[in-house]
Amino acid sequence: MRNIKLTIEYDGSSYFGWQRQPNKISIEAIIEETIQDLTKEDIKLIGSSRTDSGVHAKGQVANFITECKIPVFKIPSALNSKLPIDIVILDAEEVPLDFHARYSSVGKRYSYTILNRITPPALYKNYVAHCKYDLDFEKMKKASKYFLGTHDFSAFKSTGSSVKTSIRTISDIELIKDEEIIKLYIEGDGFLYNMVRIIAGTLIDVGRGRISCDSIEDIIRSKDRKRAGQTAPASGLCLERVYY
Amino acid sequence: MRNIKLTIEYDGSSYFGWQRQPNKISIEAIIEETIQDLTKEDIKLIGSSRTDSGVHAKGQVANFITECKIPVFKIPSALNSKLPIDIVILDAEEVPLDFHARYSSVGKRYSYTILNRITPPALYKNYVAHCKYDLDFEKMKKASKYFLGTHDFSAFKSTGSSVKTSIRTISDIELIKDEEIIKLYIEGDGFLYNMVRIIAGTLIDVGRGRISCDSIEDIIRSKDRKRAGQTAPASGLCLERVYY
Repeated sequence: MRNIKLTIEYDGSSYFGWQRQPNKISIEAIIEETIQDLTKEDIKLIGSSRTDSGVHAKGQVANFITECKIPVFKIPSALNSKLPIDIVILDAEEVPLDFHARYSSVGKRYSYTILNRITPPALYKNYVAHCKYDLDFEKMKKASKYFLGTHDFSAFKSTGSSVKTSIRTISDIELIKDEEIIKLYIEGDGFLYNMVRIIAGTLIDVGRGRISCDSIEDIIRSKDRKRAGQTAPASGLCLERVYY
Repeated sequence: MRNIKLTIEYDGSSYFGWQRQPNKISIEAIIEETIQDLTKEDIKLIGSSRTDSGVHAKGQVANFITECKIPVFKIPSALNSKLPIDIVILDAEEVPLDFHARYSSVGKRYSYTILNRITPPALYKNYVAHCKYDLDFEKMKKASKYFLGTHDFSAFKSTGSSVKTSIRTISDIELIKDEEIIKLYIEGDGFLYNMVRIIAGTLIDVGRGRISCDSIEDIIRSKDRKRAGQTAPASGLCLERVYY
């Protein structure tokens, strides 16, 4: 019996997210079925993160237990030859049997990409969130720092997932501006449902002047979802890396 | 009578290139028909560059002569509301009547993007050329400098276009590496048919060790298309800017 850890890149544009759902095409189901087709076993794929519809991944991680004897270095090309072109297995490695893509994870890194200009994008349109309002980058940068550290992020969570606690630790947050693109990188021990997209939406509201930078502390403390910004669009979000 | 200059961004993935062709969907025809629909005139659109099928543009330029009275600042949004989402008018300005998008151009800047890793791309797949062979970036950089200056680029031209001379001046060439991405920027007074893609393909061959850096001078001098590298895929190419 072997435990195989996969690192996966995907373009989420055409899928109803990672998680298997009845009558909807999900990334999890497609990869799971492709592995079953390869191994001829009824394997169960465990993903680190249930990315939503339209969200991308450069480094999603998943694992499965198998009896099959295929050499691990052959797994990526064997699966990629059967997978659709918008899902690519970057790497496969054998890991201890107790490795669990979700529970063993100690941290995640996401990016969020904003195109800030009046006209909508023709290029890269599936990979950015378009904001036509003029954003004050320095204010967004200042505001972003308030998210660092350990907080109860109830104000930055959508309803729909049951978690024991809303306390999370953000260890790194970075905002980079390159001409019309504003890119947010955020790293933490875990993220609540829609947390990165609500943080991104809140920073957009700061950039537009609808929320002041210095009120972020208050909004966090309020634990009130209504005080944070909008949930920014899925297209801007990418799961960059999962740490173990 | 007014002459309107448009700056256009487009994703070339779904089109048979810029130029109007019978029974094929072209970017030129779509924009021209959209302008005709707006102005109710039989206008003729003049593009600066006939980008091929799958080639993108961040700054294609085109112009048209019109009698219509619509304020120039309203033209982008008026056209964008009717254009498909992968073609966006970034800007419109009124220019002198003798301005001609093609003949008035004094230079162009292109980028070419290579994804250099074993596995094919799931993300950004329409915007990169994938190269699975390990590329020696330093050799590519050294080789690129031989293209600078004024040369007869007959060895770097596909047949199929009739031009008076194959002499062109490359004023700037830059190669940038960012993890798995190698990006080529090239600027010159004009480019022959497929010239940027053949230069990119030749640099890829240098990176793979199939062509030595120091033979670029010889290849240029030979004027022999067979001695240069392959024509690299259209997806990596983007018309960044046209100078006037």
